[in-house]
Amino acid sequence: MTAPLDILAIAAHRDDVEQTCGGTLLKMAELGRRTGILDLTRGEMGTRGSAAEREAESAESARILRASWREALDIPDGRVENTWANRLKVARVIRQTRPRVVILPYWKGRHPDHYTASQLGYEACFLAGLAKLDIDTALRNENSAFSQVASAVASVVAHEKQDVRLAPHRPFKIIYATLYYDIRPTFVVDITDQFESRFESLMAYKSQFSDQEAGKDIFPARAEIRARVESMARFYGALAGVTYGEPFLQKEVGLVEDVTAIPVKSI
Amino acid sequence: MTAPLDILAIAAHRDDVEQTCGGTLLKMAELGRRTGILDLTRGEMGTRGSAAEREAESAESARILRASWREALDIPDGRVENTWANRLKVARVIRQTRPRVVILPYWKGRHPDHYTASQLGYEACFLAGLAKLDIDTALRNENSAFSQVASAVASVVAHEKQDVRLAPHRPFKIIYATLYYDIRPTFVVDITDQFESRFESLMAYKSQFSDQEAGKDIFPARAEIRARVESMARFYGALAGVTYGEPFLQKEVGLVEDVTAIPVKSI
Amino acid sequence: MTAPLDILAIAAHRDDVEQTCGGTLLKMAELGRRTGILDLTRGEMGTRGSAAEREAESAESARILRASWREALDIPDGRVENTWANRLKVARVIRQTRPRVVILPYWKGRHPDHYTASQLGYEACFLAGLAKLDIDTALRNENSAFSQVASAVASVVAHEKQDVRLAPHRPFKIIYATLYYDIRPTFVVDITDQFESRFESLMAYKSQFSDQEAGKDIFPARAEIRARVESMARFYGALAGVTYGEPFLQKEVGLVEDVTAIPVKSI
Amino acid sequence: MTAPLDILAIAAHRDDVEQTCGGTLLKMAELGRRTGILDLTRGEMGTRGSAAEREAESAESARILRASWREALDIPDGRVENTWANRLKVARVIRQTRPRVVILPYWKGRHPDHYTASQLGYEACFLAGLAKLDIDTALRNENSAFSQVASAVASVVAHEKQDVRLAPHRPFKIIYATLYYDIRPTFVVDITDQFESRFESLMAYKSQFSDQEAGKDIFPARAEIRARVESMARFYGALAGVTYGEPFLQKEVGLVEDVTAIPVKSI
Amino acid sequence: MTAPLDILAIAAHRDDVEQTCGGTLLKMAELGRRTGILDLTRGEMGTRGSAAEREAESAESARILRASWREALDIPDGRVENTWANRLKVARVIRQTRPRVVILPYWKGRHPDHYTASQLGYEACFLAGLAKLDIDTALRNENSAFSQVASAVASVVAHEKQDVRLAPHRPFKIIYATLYYDIRPTFVVDITDQFESRFESLMAYKSQFSDQEAGKDIFPARAEIRARVESMARFYGALAGVTYGEPFLQKEVGLVEDVTAIPVKSI
Amino acid sequence: MTAPLDILAIAAHRDDVEQTCGGTLLKMAELGRRTGILDLTRGEMGTRGSAAEREAESAESARILRASWREALDIPDGRVENTWANRLKVARVIRQTRPRVVILPYWKGRHPDHYTASQLGYEACFLAGLAKLDIDTALRNENSAFSQVASAVASVVAHEKQDVRLAPHRPFKIIYATLYYDIRPTFVVDITDQFESRFESLMAYKSQFSDQEAGKDIFPARAEIRARVESMARFYGALAGVTYGEPFLQKEVGLVEDVTAIPVKSI
Repeated sequence: MTAPLDILAIAAHRDDVEQTCGGTLLKMAELGRRTGILDLTRGEMGTRGSAAEREAESAESARILRASWREALDIPDGRVENTWANRLKVARVIRQTRPRVVILPYWKGRHPDHYTASQLGYEACFLAGLAKLDIDTALRNENSAFSQVASAVASVVAHEKQDVRLAPHRPFKIIYATLYYDIRPTFVVDITDQFESRFESLMAYKSQFSDQEAGKDIFPARAEIRARVESMARFYGALAGVTYGEPFLQKEVGLVEDVTAIPVKSI
Repeated sequence: MTAPLDILAIAAHRDDVEQTCGGTLLKMAELGRRTGILDLTRGEMGTRGSAAEREAESAESARILRASWREALDIPDGRVENTWANRLKVARVIRQTRPRVVILPYWKGRHPDHYTASQLGYEACFLAGLAKLDIDTALRNENSAFSQVASAVASVVAHEKQDVRLAPHRPFKIIYATLYYDIRPTFVVDITDQFESRFESLMAYKSQFSDQEAGKDIFPARAEIRARVESMARFYGALAGVTYGEPFLQKEVGLVEDVTAIPVKSI
Repeated sequence: MTAPLDILAIAAHRDDVEQTCGGTLLKMAELGRRTGILDLTRGEMGTRGSAAEREAESAESARILRASWREALDIPDGRVENTWANRLKVARVIRQTRPRVVILPYWKGRHPDHYTASQLGYEACFLAGLAKLDIDTALRNENSAFSQVASAVASVVAHEKQDVRLAPHRPFKIIYATLYYDIRPTFVVDITDQFESRFESLMAYKSQFSDQEAGKDIFPARAEIRARVESMARFYGALAGVTYGEPFLQKEVGLVEDVTAIPVKSI
Repeated sequence: MTAPLDILAIAAHRDDVEQTCGGTLLKMAELGRRTGILDLTRGEMGTRGSAAEREAESAESARILRASWREALDIPDGRVENTWANRLKVARVIRQTRPRVVILPYWKGRHPDHYTASQLGYEACFLAGLAKLDIDTALRNENSAFSQVASAVASVVAHEKQDVRLAPHRPFKIIYATLYYDIRPTFVVDITDQFESRFESLMAYKSQFSDQEAGKDIFPARAEIRARVESMARFYGALAGVTYGEPFLQKEVGLVEDVTAIPVKSI
Repeated sequence: MTAPLDILAIAAHRDDVEQTCGGTLLKMAELGRRTGILDLTRGEMGTRGSAAEREAESAESARILRASWREALDIPDGRVENTWANRLKVARVIRQTRPRVVILPYWKGRHPDHYTASQLGYEACFLAGLAKLDIDTALRNENSAFSQVASAVASVVAHEKQDVRLAPHRPFKIIYATLYYDIRPTFVVDITDQFESRFESLMAYKSQFSDQEAGKDIFPARAEIRARVESMARFYGALAGVTYGEPFLQKEVGLVEDVTAIPVKSI
Repeated sequence: MTAPLDILAIAAHRDDVEQTCGGTLLKMAELGRRTGILDLTRGEMGTRGSAAEREAESAESARILRASWREALDIPDGRVENTWANRLKVARVIRQTRPRVVILPYWKGRHPDHYTASQLGYEACFLAGLAKLDIDTALRNENSAFSQVASAVASVVAHEKQDVRLAPHRPFKIIYATLYYDIRPTFVVDITDQFESRFESLMAYKSQFSDQEAGKDIFPARAEIRARVESMARFYGALAGVTYGEPFLQKEVGLVEDVTAIPVKSI
């Protein structure tokens, strides 16, 4: 087993993390943290590009963001559901990667896969910490009960080929990336120095963002994407007095050790 | 002129600061910060104790909280109003003491003096930063226009006997102490180590909190006060996973440098 | 069939009701009301204690709270789901016990079992009132369709050995116990006279709350528990001007017959 | 001095109370409570009718509502301001009438006089309870400082011709009538039995509500008024399961003694 | 295949649409728009009337509302669930009818079928637009996996007897009818001219709304229904300055071309 | 007297309107509407530039925005107060210019002049419609009572030299420009075609926005301003699916005539 991750970002689709928290992941990697990305689906429903193309692109993107770990589950694209089997699969990844911080999508949004991923991810974090839960046995039970999820489960379990049972693990902190939804964030991460690389990581998804014929009425041209991404990052940066920012929400109250060190000018 | 303050807490009445942010002020003083307290009124409407008694008690309390500076304005007790003259008086104190952080009461509450002090304090912070505003001249103009505020203004201006005009100053940060109002705070300050001294600072107001005949139907007995103060501190501490806490609200979003260092357990 | 209950409290785990509304249940019993408790799970996922130990403890606790009825369903601990089968099981209990008031957990929280129990309980209350719904037949249909829920369902149905079909019943009132979540309650119940017994009922769960080795990093010591429970009860009591209180939320507006009789001082 | 009031409703204009809480006042009178109405202004800015006409009409309306007390202050219509002098005037009435419950307008609304009356009324309730505040002396001081309020103040003070200083008094409860503003109320009062008389009390303002030429483009015809008033009463009644209701908001949480007695069906 | 619909209203039960947006549907039909109604269930759980009676009544109601299309799915009454199979069924209808605007119930409410229909409808709109999703194949896969949904699915697929695969379609706009829930709407539609016909369409459900013995304690008498429906329509009309209105909510911000043309008087 | 305005934008400082609603004003002018701008103060407190310079700049900006009318009142910069005298002054302008729509700043914000201008403007709109209010007489009364406002009032009244009394006028619609405050707008106006001219109008304030020595630590460089202004306009545009937008809030619900014509894509 490899070293635990400091941060694991979970999202529904390859290229989601790049849009919502890629700058933050890169910044943390630059600070020496081990970061990981879990994509719940493989993008087979996308209008453009095959799942295989997206896999290669996501690996290139992970390299740009300096992620230490990236995998994709086999939850069907367009059908992310908060089922017991899916919770077990995600909880299994959490036990494997043992992150201190988990980044989830915000729990409201336009795309059902996004908001469902948020609830699924949260409940998986909870399950991963239950000492008496044997995830592999539970997955095998699901397997025999429902034939339709059998192959998926089998592939997940086989993937690890592990000999030892995964130890319980619960992340210390869960935060929510809110960029896809117009809500006031709890805090912003300054990504001024990471902005260009983060944009590059998004552009690594050539099948999605190159100017092309397929889906040109629903996909904006590349120049338009740049303008949009930049204005969003500037907007959230401006809330906190920096040039470019990524927005996050946490459910808990803050805890401040030195009130003279609180950032962001009031007046 | 003395060294600038790191923190200035502004409240309507002597003994307000002790209840809402005394632990935080002491904690900051223990960290080597210079703290100050501005009481807007002198307590002449209080059911118990004279203004003179309260002055002595507030000095003793300031000593316990290790405050570097404490003064009281002469705004009438029970009649804190957000007037131009009052804004000038408070702005003048801000220019004198030059705090980086100002703590105000929350802008809702049961006592009109409390919530009005919040708005008055905020607008005074704004005025204090206007480079072209000559506060002493403005106060003198108010003085001649309204005879009834003359003596108050005169006393404030005379108090300083300064030779040089006060330079503009705007605090970097304004936070709101919310203990008097049932609202979810933005953050909590852990005052576990300061709790006993903070309670002692409140008990320094012997005229208010000793068991006595006058007003015994509106003032709780001392044992009851201890239980109440402790349960409030424990409640807000529990929100942040510490034993005793004081609650605050800030209007701005946060800015996080390292997401792995965010305190308060999520799950 | 026994007499209908006046109040039925539904919660996910044994010892939940003791923490969120035990004082209220005891107070109602002292007023002569028949109260009941339905625990949805049997606690097999708990870090400490076996399900069997918890069953004995919960019976002792029910005795202390003077509950007229207490049972536990066999929904898996850590996997409370709002499924048709689970809704039928809970609806069946509602038809059996015929409560006027149902107390549910609040619909947000840290533990997925808690917030899911809230939605599950609400929808079960709805189902229980549908005159044309034959719950036992519906449960048997579920039984044959999904083999994995068969034994559970069978046990529930067998448990009653009843000859007559349960009559439809819908509770008049549903209220939500909010103690586990930091939200402003609609109302508080004064449990000053019940506080000590309520704490004793919680301590009846010796497997959970005795100082012991297992799980000592996640369970607070007993003295700490007392302090926490007391500070919460005092905090909510203080909102309503009483010593100890339990917080509740209702979705409906209130209806006041005599405005001069509204309790809780405003100013 | 007469007996204290049980309830005092304060509003900006004659005929406001009739629209927002007339049914509740009548219901309380029928229960044997002593009710009072304080109109802050005398209606001189109204498009229709003179102040004198309105005075006669308001007396007739008070008779229909069985109010034990009704007076109007001389605050200028269209210029209700939350000044020290106005707070003193209202606080003086509170000391005179000593109500247990004060009904104020809600603090948001279309008409500035309404929302300002809410804040003015609240702060007057606070002032009235300050033991060390000598209201008549304070009014005389205002009098000499500002000549323009002199006659008003004099008339208020003279009105009473009292020999003894008014004792401090603070109402136990303050509630807000929300009918003029689209906000969800905390509770509703069932005025089904009072609805017709309440409508009659409104129609007592013949200068306002008779079909006539002046202002016919801004005043609805009488039949239309009936339909509107009825639909509002039915809407708020329906929230609480009764035929006609009046909506109110309270800031405090509720306190429930018997949860089986909470009215309003949930499901 | 017939011409696309301009508007499709989706609701859980026959007679829901009549209560929440019938006036709007009729108004749109009078403007020349093609409107449709999808009832998710067939009403077999209703206390009064059979599913067959309700079908005839709903056809009569559709005639009164001048709807171009109306069908009912076979989702079980009282058991509307947001499952993959149900999402596919609704998405299939959206591809068939190709509406520009979809009206859904609001996502909170008293009846679980109502709020679940809201989420189910939203996610179906999303699925219907996925170019790579072959709905009929997906339904057949569900069919073989779960025998209990087989006949339902088969009937839906057979119903169309279509030769060509349905093209992807996503509605431009989704709005939510909020009449069943006390929330402030985003906008109101003036149904003053449609009110009587809309009421007539509701009365077409004779099995539900005629005065009769069965269920007379839960169904209000006809005269009472008229009064309730009228007061609701008047209440929402009054918010927008018209006589009768129906309330809706949209999640998106508005877009205004000419600010001088914004309706609804402010002051 | 000139023709009535279609729209009057009221703001505290010269250059506020250019930042919050300049694009909308220009768009309306291009549609043939008569637009006006009322600046409440003359900018004498500004760190850069004199009041005289600002006057010339504001005239140039008005020309670029094609405003039909622009004036500045003499309310002191940094001391916008919601007094009777100020309300009368603004109400007088409303009677003079007779706008159908008034644009006010949002009622929360960082700068006290901004949020106070919002309340002042609202209450002035109300006063302007009171038929029995003779504004000039009321201003003269204020004049004699308070000597310090005498010259200001005199100048306003003299300014017009009118012979006839101004007729009452109340705007039909009041909307709030929210760009200075992070709140979700009710609607956005598409200013894609006006964006460059609007930016030019802001740059007409050379004393404020040229790169220069004075205040260079508080004023951003010109290139930075461009980036900020553009990202804000893009952010709000994106909410409504257009390139550049200006955000507004209205208090009233909307009224929709044709639901198939509602703009902004949902999904």
